[in-house]
Amino acid sequence: MNVLAIPGSLRAASINAAFCRAASRLAAAPLRISVYAGLGALPLFNPDLEADPPRPVQEFRAAVANARAVLIASPEYAHGIAGVLKNALDWLVSFEGFIGKPVVLVNTSPRAHHAYDALREVLQTMSADILSDACMTLPLLGGCVTEEAMVSSAELAARVREALRCLARDLGTRGGPGPVFPLT
Amino acid sequence: MNVLAIPGSLRAASINAAFCRAASRLAAAPLRISVYAGLGALPLFNPDLEADPPRPVQEFRAAVANARAVLIASPEYAHGIAGVLKNALDWLVSFEGFIGKPVVLVNTSPRAHHAYDALREVLQTMSADILSDACMTLPLLGGCVTEEAMVSSAELAARVREALRCLARDLGTRGGPGPVFPLT
Repeated sequence: MNVLAIPGSLRAASINAAFCRAASRLAAAPLRISVYAGLGALPLFNPDLEADPPRPVQEFRAAVANARAVLIASPEYAHGIAGVLKNALDWLVSFEGFIGKPVVLVNTSPRAHHAYDALREVLQTMSADILSDACMTLPLLGGCVTEEAMVSSAELAARVREALRCLARDLGTRGGPGPVFPLT
Repeated sequence: MNVLAIPGSLRAASINAAFCRAASRLAAAPLRISVYAGLGALPLFNPDLEADPPRPVQEFRAAVANARAVLIASPEYAHGIAGVLKNALDWLVSFEGFIGKPVVLVNTSPRAHHAYDALREVLQTMSADILSDACMTLPLLGGCVTEEAMVSSAELAARVREALRCLARDLGTRGGPGPVFPLT
């Protein structure tokens, strides 16, 4: 069960990217999490390009379509969704491979809720299937901000493993992975 | 009184960009509206680049800082702020030249409200000064979607002129334009 983890920040020391890598290490079979590192390569969304999307957009769409689920961990900027993440989602709005896609949201900053709420609204509007039972709000601020610290924290690791078991159970009830989405 | 109009869509036939151009033609002295066409040249926001921002970011910040007010007309994508616009705003979050900046919001799609509401929240969080009396919600769908149609519509032109008079009155109570923000 391939899951695509998407960090919403391009910062090298991004807590959300670190979380995605940590979750990848904590995932147990049959779940396998790969971290998508291509958000920064996407062009800014332009509806005029939808008919023949640039290569990075095609690759992003294929990665999403070929994953059984998508996990999104994103910072909040000024009480809003990070523009980098919203730009990526804008490229998926009219993409049929995203419709009904199981999505897990991770909020790494429990003091923030605006972007998380806005993201739920956007994803629902895009006909994603938000798996509320597997969504996580994690108190990562303070010391636990690196991949190593996250994996080493017994409490955090237990919470993440439980959420991922919940995700795997849900995906298990849905049948096979479906057809592979080819790059054209 | 220089006002910077920012359309939130890169689409060539963008209604919001057409509105910005129409507003520029409808503006009466002392107001002068210039349309910012550089949003598509901005890189995706990366906090690591804030210490030495790329040239397009410097130019955008200077244009914002040197304007007496900013007018934003943006589409809503999937019940959210257009990623292109949010990306541009993310570059302004830590920019002191935006603090207290008078902002006029234009909603060109009265059936939509999610992005407009989210934009208000984001701009307030960024310490912008939203001039509610000059903000406009305009029923532009239907025939009135080109610059020429907007300028030619007596009803629309009257509403826009009235809102711009309101903006000019407000700016007039604020004193001079302040120092010019230099490009470094």
